[in-house]
Amino acid sequence: MIQQLENGFSIRPISLNDFEEVKDTLSALTVVGEISPEIYASLLKYWDTLYLDDNKTKVYNVHVIVDSSGTICAVGTIFLEKKIIHCGGIVGHIEDISVNKKCQGMKLGKLLIEHLTNVGRKAGCYKIILDCDVKNTGFYEKCGYSNAGVEMQIRF
Amino acid sequence: MIQQLENGFSIRPISLNDFEEVKDTLSALTVVGEISPEIYASLLKYWDTLYLDDNKTKVYNVHVIVDSSGTICAVGTIFLEKKIIHCGGIVGHIEDISVNKKCQGMKLGKLLIEHLTNVGRKAGCYKIILDCDVKNTGFYEKCGYSNAGVEMQIRF
Repeated sequence: MIQQLENGFSIRPISLNDFEEVKDTLSALTVVGEISPEIYASLLKYWDTLYLDDNKTKVYNVHVIVDSSGTICAVGTIFLEKKIIHCGGIVGHIEDISVNKKCQGMKLGKLLIEHLTNVGRKAGCYKIILDCDVKNTGFYEKCGYSNAGVEMQIRF
Repeated sequence: MIQQLENGFSIRPISLNDFEEVKDTLSALTVVGEISPEIYASLLKYWDTLYLDDNKTKVYNVHVIVDSSGTICAVGTIFLEKKIIHCGGIVGHIEDISVNKKCQGMKLGKLLIEHLTNVGRKAGCYKIILDCDVKNTGFYEKCGYSNAGVEMQIRF
């Protein structure tokens, strides 16, 4: 399940031992909060139970980029939604892309997006979508994405 | 599972018998394509197998608004994503909102969004997001949503 990237980096699914490093990496993106190792372990177990209706494609694909020493440099998710429209089509949702502050400027974000896009394409998605800040649209355009609309939210 | 709305309308989870009417209603939104009754039935069965890690909250909540005669007037989905961030938080994704052409102008879109938002809130979402055309942001603002960013997509 480990795939080699450029410059000694590789990418693989998230694992139990990644807890502290993933928390640290995600903290560059947003509030991670007081998640315990037990809740993290139970979340990974939960994600592992969910498959598409082919019973083999995972719904949650949470992958990490590690450097040659095994240190986590970036994390990102694509999860897969099965719809009625587009002949019962699959849409990939890219979520929670974060590059550790120590590893920024190494083009790892682009490698991560390309990898997750490929995961979605192989799973049979007719499209992949993601939401981002206006200031990051240029980055995603370099990854092959284009503007499709507006993200709206409500918070509780 | 049926909830009464205003003016004789009610809302309930999608069911097997809704096939033709749901297809017709979704065709106001986008390409539905050649989905067979068998694929539709298998999709509903698949959706019904997916729960959050509490084993009782459905991941896919696809609901229809029907009028007093039982005719389907609108359809929409909220599905629930379980994350690491925000203390293992839940995000609701509202998708595929469509009001049948015969029922437009009756404020059913707003009733549908309010209902699905409530489903997400009760499930414990810390936020709910959706993507829309720029021209529809005013409608979603009336439903309590605000602009949160840009939707980017790649199509295959």
